[in-house]
Amino acid sequence: QSSSTVYGLVDLGFVRESGGPHGASATKLTSGVASGSRLGFRGTEDLGDGLAAFYVLEMGINADTGTLGQGGLGFGRQSLVGLQGGFGSVSLGRQYTPVALIQTETDPFVTGMAGTSANLISAGGAGGNNRMDNTLRYAYTGKSGLTVDLVYGFGEVNDSSRPKRQFGAAIGYVNGPVYVKLGHHNVNDAKSVPAKITYLGAKYDFGVATAHFNYVVNKGSAVFGLVNADSRDVLVGVSVPYGPGRFMASYIRKDDKTRANLDANQVALGYTYFLSKRTSLYASVARIHNTAPAGASTGFYRVGNATEQGLGSRAYNFGVRHAF
Amino acid sequence: QSSSTVYGLVDLGFVRESGGPHGASATKLTSGVASGSRLGFRGTEDLGDGLAAFYVLEMGINADTGTLGQGGLGFGRQSLVGLQGGFGSVSLGRQYTPVALIQTETDPFVTGMAGTSANLISAGGAGGNNRMDNTLRYAYTGKSGLTVDLVYGFGEVNDSSRPKRQFGAAIGYVNGPVYVKLGHHNVNDAKSVPAKITYLGAKYDFGVATAHFNYVVNKGSAVFGLVNADSRDVLVGVSVPYGPGRFMASYIRKDDKTRANLDANQVALGYTYFLSKRTSLYASVARIHNTAPAGASTGFYRVGNATEQGLGSRAYNFGVRHAF
Amino acid sequence: QSSSTVYGLVDLGFVRESGGPHGASATKLTSGVASGSRLGFRGTEDLGDGLAAFYVLEMGINADTGTLGQGGLGFGRQSLVGLQGGFGSVSLGRQYTPVALIQTETDPFVTGMAGTSANLISAGGAGGNNRMDNTLRYAYTGKSGLTVDLVYGFGEVNDSSRPKRQFGAAIGYVNGPVYVKLGHHNVNDAKSVPAKITYLGAKYDFGVATAHFNYVVNKGSAVFGLVNADSRDVLVGVSVPYGPGRFMASYIRKDDKTRANLDANQVALGYTYFLSKRTSLYASVARIHNTAPAGASTGFYRVGNATEQGLGSRAYNFGVRHAF
Repeated sequence: QSSSTVYGLVDLGFVRESGGPHGASATKLTSGVASGSRLGFRGTEDLGDGLAAFYVLEMGINADTGTLGQGGLGFGRQSLVGLQGGFGSVSLGRQYTPVALIQTETDPFVTGMAGTSANLISAGGAGGNNRMDNTLRYAYTGKSGLTVDLVYGFGEVNDSSRPKRQFGAAIGYVNGPVYVKLGHHNVNDAKSVPAKITYLGAKYDFGVATAHFNYVVNKGSAVFGLVNADSRDVLVGVSVPYGPGRFMASYIRKDDKTRANLDANQVALGYTYFLSKRTSLYASVARIHNTAPAGASTGFYRVGNATEQGLGSRAYNFGVRHAF
Repeated sequence: QSSSTVYGLVDLGFVRESGGPHGASATKLTSGVASGSRLGFRGTEDLGDGLAAFYVLEMGINADTGTLGQGGLGFGRQSLVGLQGGFGSVSLGRQYTPVALIQTETDPFVTGMAGTSANLISAGGAGGNNRMDNTLRYAYTGKSGLTVDLVYGFGEVNDSSRPKRQFGAAIGYVNGPVYVKLGHHNVNDAKSVPAKITYLGAKYDFGVATAHFNYVVNKGSAVFGLVNADSRDVLVGVSVPYGPGRFMASYIRKDDKTRANLDANQVALGYTYFLSKRTSLYASVARIHNTAPAGASTGFYRVGNATEQGLGSRAYNFGVRHAF
Repeated sequence: QSSSTVYGLVDLGFVRESGGPHGASATKLTSGVASGSRLGFRGTEDLGDGLAAFYVLEMGINADTGTLGQGGLGFGRQSLVGLQGGFGSVSLGRQYTPVALIQTETDPFVTGMAGTSANLISAGGAGGNNRMDNTLRYAYTGKSGLTVDLVYGFGEVNDSSRPKRQFGAAIGYVNGPVYVKLGHHNVNDAKSVPAKITYLGAKYDFGVATAHFNYVVNKGSAVFGLVNADSRDVLVGVSVPYGPGRFMASYIRKDDKTRANLDANQVALGYTYFLSKRTSLYASVARIHNTAPAGASTGFYRVGNATEQGLGSRAYNFGVRHAF
């Protein structure tokens, strides 16, 4: 059997951002607006007795400028090897946090376009990242719909396992129209001070529409751009199949429980038009109402997209996404 | 259908350069002498009704040292997605300037080997580059031979669309033995001061030989290494099929219209021997007569090749090129 | 015919290191413990008359963090093009030193896991590297078992061919159970001062076990981490097929002939369990007895693995390796 499948996605779109510091605005051609552009290599090998080996090597690409994604990493999206069988799967490498998977799977915007929930809600990894290095994962999906996801990321600091250590878990039920998962993630900083996130994500497919819901509790040290010393996030959203496409809308409220009380909320609308299963056009608009003034070092949230953090409190974007 | 084709080219050759500053010379093994070494992934998807989606992700490689090309970019040669149909094609991403395509298609050396026309003639993009970031392109090739190529590259500077903006256009007629295209490219610098290039490229295949001709007008701010505050370039060349190979020769004259009057001219000879359609051996020699002294900061032109800028006014090189 | 084969290997394992400076220890998830993780593209083209063209482009990957290997090189493992025929093969690019090939082929640990011979023995290239840039190679393997391997690596310093130049050679006999090769490598530093290594590697497959032997003479300027101003290395080892796996063991002695007399020796044990031809589990332990104190700038040798240099004088590791 062939041992390697080449796959990927190229997404490029126009982005208009405004409401930045001092009223700054920008117009750009951006890679990875709806979904991060990527090139991947993956495969599985049947080892007999229901056991299989698998690997994924996935590069992130900024196709607007030809640079590598994730700040220049070669395989910054995923790089892992594992074994799977009736017991579930065990994998090692650079991988998604369990919380990030819940976030992506329950955001009507699939954490992309102007409306991405990542504008306000953290994916829980170190620095707010949705991926983690040096990670051992155990995952299980039962026939009844039960899912379990456990991760441990080594801090790799000499003489102690505690600094920079990460661990996370999620348990869920995914069956037919029902998706509900509860996740938790804990990241220690270099001084072993933890930041914690607890993430409830749910959606229900009513056929005519899918309802989306998130409830998130952030505790501990601050994550860049996404204050979570003590905050609660709520997302309510809907996605509606319509013709050869899909509308989506969401409202997110961040409730800052610290004395600064820098609350924020986002409203977002979007549409994806499928030219084929693999190719689509999309458009989206989002606006954040910030309590903090534009450009404030904490508590000022920006409308970004699947790849960029964004400039200001408003943005719209439209583009094309092609998977291969 | 399969959705991804892996392709590429590895070119490595010996390069001898001399006539550099203080008489400097060098002997090297260089990647991408005749054509830049590369690894690419591309595909198309039929969307029905004559419409198709396409993408290209192409890495530049310095195979002599294993580094990534274009100064370390991941996909520095091309990274784009687009849609094509009867109307032509629209593509987004990092792409060639229209002028660069004319230059490559009308240089007997295909902008490679010691004789590359890029030693004296700019490809018009920012910094003299043959590629441009953040670019929207419309291209059309009619059955009658008419070609149209339009590009717009976003400057992506906050609050104004003018700084670092690029736009270009080319119109041409390509039919049987005839190739003639006229292109123009305009690059604004960070202060919105434009540099402009107008490029006429032509060739005619007489069967026994192909005649090549370029006439180029450069105006505006200086491009690194290729003074074009005000200059005219003329190339005349010929390429001759001979046995299982092809001879090529060119003469290029740069007429500096500024007060400094740093004129230069290049004579070049080369030969490619085809071991197969995909694999060839090549050899080339070129010499530039500079008015400016060796190593002068402006007006000293160097004999390079498809990848390196070169050291001095003379060089020869020979090597092997293998496409896959 | 298809012109490109995608291949690779993902290896990730747990590493426990101790005996570092001030007693430092570390626990890590590491990529490339037994064999460096990689993604490669290679192909050959039949040119007729027994002649063929070939190329290899091979990326090194640190799959624990998603970075590119070899310090961030794009194709840091190998990038080359060549021609082969009855005369042997000629190749150009970034390639292994002849000595590195002998080392890998005669180490019971295949220069991987805790027991890698590279902990004590240099691969001879610039900086102790097992690869060299800008290299022309001639290699020949005769039907009688004779092998010849010659390399020349350009220093690429202006005006002189001597600084940073490398050259090497190996001659061998490889036939049935017998493997014996003698290699030599010479690296000039930036001031043209040479470092030299002479490497005898042998192994004999008795069926029930394979015996391994190295004798290495190092002369000249110091190589980072591996003092070789004047030293002798001896390796004796054995590898034993056992069930669906293989045991290996080695003892290495470094005899420092300089006045400092910083001798060292390593003992190592390992086991590989093959889940299939392509997928294996492995475990290894090694300990170095250093004369120099822990953390000394010269003469303190560390137990590393196929990718990392290591922290201290002891380590064990275990993991999974999957080739595709």
